[in-house]
Amino acid sequence: MQYATPLPAYLVQRYHGWKATAYNDNKAWYKRLANEGQHPRAMVISCCDSRVHVTSIFGADQGEFFIHRNIANLVPPHKPDGDLHGTSAALEYAVNVLKVAHIVVLGHSNCGGVKGCFDMCSGAAPELEEKASYVGRWMDLLRPGYERTADIADPAARTSAMEREAVLVSLENLMTFPFVRDAVESEVMTLHGLWNDIGEGDLEQYDPAKKVFVKV
Amino acid sequence: MQYATPLPAYLVQRYHGWKATAYNDNKAWYKRLANEGQHPRAMVISCCDSRVHVTSIFGADQGEFFIHRNIANLVPPHKPDGDLHGTSAALEYAVNVLKVAHIVVLGHSNCGGVKGCFDMCSGAAPELEEKASYVGRWMDLLRPGYERTADIADPAARTSAMEREAVLVSLENLMTFPFVRDAVESEVMTLHGLWNDIGEGDLEQYDPAKKVFVKV
Amino acid sequence: MQYATPLPAYLVQRYHGWKATAYNDNKAWYKRLANEGQHPRAMVISCCDSRVHVTSIFGADQGEFFIHRNIANLVPPHKPDGDLHGTSAALEYAVNVLKVAHIVVLGHSNCGGVKGCFDMCSGAAPELEEKASYVGRWMDLLRPGYERTADIADPAARTSAMEREAVLVSLENLMTFPFVRDAVESEVMTLHGLWNDIGEGDLEQYDPAKKVFVKV
Amino acid sequence: MQYATPLPAYLVQRYHGWKATAYNDNKAWYKRLANEGQHPRAMVISCCDSRVHVTSIFGADQGEFFIHRNIANLVPPHKPDGDLHGTSAALEYAVNVLKVAHIVVLGHSNCGGVKGCFDMCSGAAPELEEKASYVGRWMDLLRPGYERTADIADPAARTSAMEREAVLVSLENLMTFPFVRDAVESEVMTLHGLWNDIGEGDLEQYDPAKKVFVKV
Repeated sequence: MQYATPLPAYLVQRYHGWKATAYNDNKAWYKRLANEGQHPRAMVISCCDSRVHVTSIFGADQGEFFIHRNIANLVPPHKPDGDLHGTSAALEYAVNVLKVAHIVVLGHSNCGGVKGCFDMCSGAAPELEEKASYVGRWMDLLRPGYERTADIADPAARTSAMEREAVLVSLENLMTFPFVRDAVESEVMTLHGLWNDIGEGDLEQYDPAKKVFVKV
Repeated sequence: MQYATPLPAYLVQRYHGWKATAYNDNKAWYKRLANEGQHPRAMVISCCDSRVHVTSIFGADQGEFFIHRNIANLVPPHKPDGDLHGTSAALEYAVNVLKVAHIVVLGHSNCGGVKGCFDMCSGAAPELEEKASYVGRWMDLLRPGYERTADIADPAARTSAMEREAVLVSLENLMTFPFVRDAVESEVMTLHGLWNDIGEGDLEQYDPAKKVFVKV
Repeated sequence: MQYATPLPAYLVQRYHGWKATAYNDNKAWYKRLANEGQHPRAMVISCCDSRVHVTSIFGADQGEFFIHRNIANLVPPHKPDGDLHGTSAALEYAVNVLKVAHIVVLGHSNCGGVKGCFDMCSGAAPELEEKASYVGRWMDLLRPGYERTADIADPAARTSAMEREAVLVSLENLMTFPFVRDAVESEVMTLHGLWNDIGEGDLEQYDPAKKVFVKV
Repeated sequence: MQYATPLPAYLVQRYHGWKATAYNDNKAWYKRLANEGQHPRAMVISCCDSRVHVTSIFGADQGEFFIHRNIANLVPPHKPDGDLHGTSAALEYAVNVLKVAHIVVLGHSNCGGVKGCFDMCSGAAPELEEKASYVGRWMDLLRPGYERTADIADPAARTSAMEREAVLVSLENLMTFPFVRDAVESEVMTLHGLWNDIGEGDLEQYDPAKKVFVKV
C-alpha cells in the first residue's frame, strides 16, 4: 500500500498525551482486557454520525459495549446467501460468540442518511435511486419507514418520524435472524430501541405497549 | 415491534447522570452541532471490539470523527452491483457528502475476527467456511492477509501480523473506490493505517516507504 | 510601501522546511480548509505574549480555534459608536458569522501588560497615564481589577490576582455585547475563564459558584 | 461573573495530556521563560482565522514571536487620542518595551474579513455599512485597498488582491507611528509583508522594488 501517509502531528501529540495520562492511569484494566478478552454486556448499533457518542451518553468505559456503527443504524434482514454482510457478521459475532445480554439500536435526530432516504423516496434526489449509489441502496432498507409515515405532511416532522422508523425497521429485521430470535425467546437477550435528540440531549425509548417512543 | 423492552435501569441512571453533567455543561456545543450540522475532519474505520475507543485515544469530542465500526475494521472492494453494502455506503457518505480530509483504518491486537479468520483458513474452524456463516464470509476479505503471512510459523505471531494485514487489505480496497482514489490523487484526502496494542497502549502506523508498521 | 524588507533567511528556511514536511503531510486538510471554509468550535482570546500558546496546550490543529490576541487578553465593553474596535469586531465575527460554541478567555502568569497596569495605577509609571500612551489607555480596562485587589499588600501577589481579574473583567464585558448575551442566554454559547501559569504549566479555571480560580 | 462554565471535558483531557508530555519534556524552558521574561525576536500581526498558524509555518516555539491577531491582520493609523486602540497598544509594547527586531504582517487567502470588505464596498452587504457593525467599521481600514483594485473585474481575483492590499495598508499605517518609523529609520527594526495561500501552503512576500508579492 503505497498510499498511506503519516498521521497528522496533532493526532500524534494527542495520542502521546492519552498514553501518558488516561492509559497510564488505567494500565491494569487495559492489560486485563487484553489478557482475559472482552466480555461486553451489550451490543450497540448506532450511526456513524460524528455527533453520536454512545459511550459518552452511557458513561461506558473500554470493554462495556460491542459497537457497530453504520449509516442510519440500520440492520438488514437475515439473508444467508454467502455474500458479504458486515452488519449481520457483527450481529452474529455479538450474539453467538460474545453472548451479549442486550442489543440496543440507537437512532438520532438530524440524521443525514434518513434525510437522504426521504429525499430519494420523495423524488428530490433521483441520483440516490441509481444502482451505483451505495447510500441509496443502503437506505432502501428504510423505504418501509417512508411508507409508514405517509400521513405526515410536514417534511421535517416526517423525517424525524422516519428516524424513529429506522430504529423500528432494524428491530424488526433483527428478529428475522434465527440466532437473535432464539436468544430473545429463550430470554437470554433483550432488544432496545432508542432515539437521541442531539441538540436537546433527550433520549427516547420505544414502548411496545404504547407503540410510541417515550422519554427515558 | 413487540419485542423491545425497557432499557436496563443502570443505563437509564447513567444517561440521566450524563444529561445533568456532560450534556448540561456542553449544551451549547450540542445545540450548535444540531443546528449547523457536522463537519468531521476524518472518517475512522475501526473494529466493533469493545476495547477499542478511538475518541479516547485521540482526545476527540462530539463532532470530530465520522466513525464506522465493523468486524476487524475491514473495507470490501468497490462493487456497485445494486446490493446492500453498509461499509461502502458509509465511505461514500464520508467522502462525497462530508468531504473528510482523512480516512484512518484502525486495527488492534487480540482481534477476535482476525483470530476467526486464522482458524478458518488453517482448517481449525470449518463451520466458518459454511455459506451461512456471516462472520466467515465477512472474514473472507482477509484471506489475502492469511496467504501473505504464510512464512510465519507461530500462530500467535501470524495472527498478530494478520491484524496489520487487515489494515493493509482495507487500505488497498479503499483505493478501488473511484471517489476515494480521486480524492487521494487530487490531494484533498489522505489515508492512514494504524494498529493499536490494547494491553500496552501502543500505536503503530504503516510506513509505506519501509513497508512496515512503526510506533507513532 | 518602500519599507518592507526581505524575510530573514532563518524564517525562509524554516518555512521551506514546514512546506516540505508538515504542509506536505497535511495537504489534504489544508485544501479542505481552503475549499470548505473554517468551522472553528471556539473563539479564544489570549495575550500577545510569546510564551502563551493555546493551540499547544489544547492539542489543537489548524481549523479548531478562532484566536484573537491582544495585550493582557482584554475585552472592552460594548460601544457601537462607529469607531474602530478591533476586539469587538473579532467578537462579532466569531459569534455572528462563525457561530462558535465557546469563548475562552485565557490569562497567564508574568503578564507584562498587567504589570504595567499595576505600575500605572500605583503611581510607579506615570508615563502610562499619558493620553498618548496606547498601552496605558488599553490597560485602563483593568483599573476595576486594580481596585478590587486593594486588600492584597504584596505587589507580586496583587499583580498575580490582577491577571485573574483581567479574565473576569473580560468575561463581564463580554456580557455587555447583546449578541454575546443572546447566545449565552439561549444556551448556544458558553463562556470560560482560564489562567495559565507559564512556568509551572498549571491551568486554572474560574468557578463562578466558589468565585475563585481552581486548578483544572 | 456568574456566566463562566466549566471547560468541556475533552479540553481538560487534552490539557492533562499536554502537561504530562510537551510541558513535562520542556519544563526547564518554560520555567526559564517565566523567570527571565520573554525576549521575542519578532512581532507578528496575523488574522484570527483558525486556519492561520504562524508558529506552525515558521517552526516557532514558546518565546519566539509576540503575536497580535485581529480580523484581516489590519493595523490602523497612528491616532493618540486617548481612546482604546488594542492593535496600537500591542505595537507600542512590542516596539518600545520588547524591542522586537522585526514586525511581520501576515495576510492569507480565503479571508472572511476581506470578503466582507469587498461585499460592503461593492454594495452587496449594506448591513456592514451601519454604524453599529463592528466588522464593517474595522474593515473600513481596507477601503483604500478596495479602491486600488478597481481595475480587477473578477470578484474572486479582486478579493485575493485585496488580501494583499490589507498587508500593504497595514505596512503603510505602521510607518505613521513615530516609534515604528524611528526604529525602522535607525535600522534597529525591519518590516515584512507576507501572504499565505492556505490551501496550497504557499508564502509570498512583498518586494518593494518590484511592487509585487513574490513567492518566498
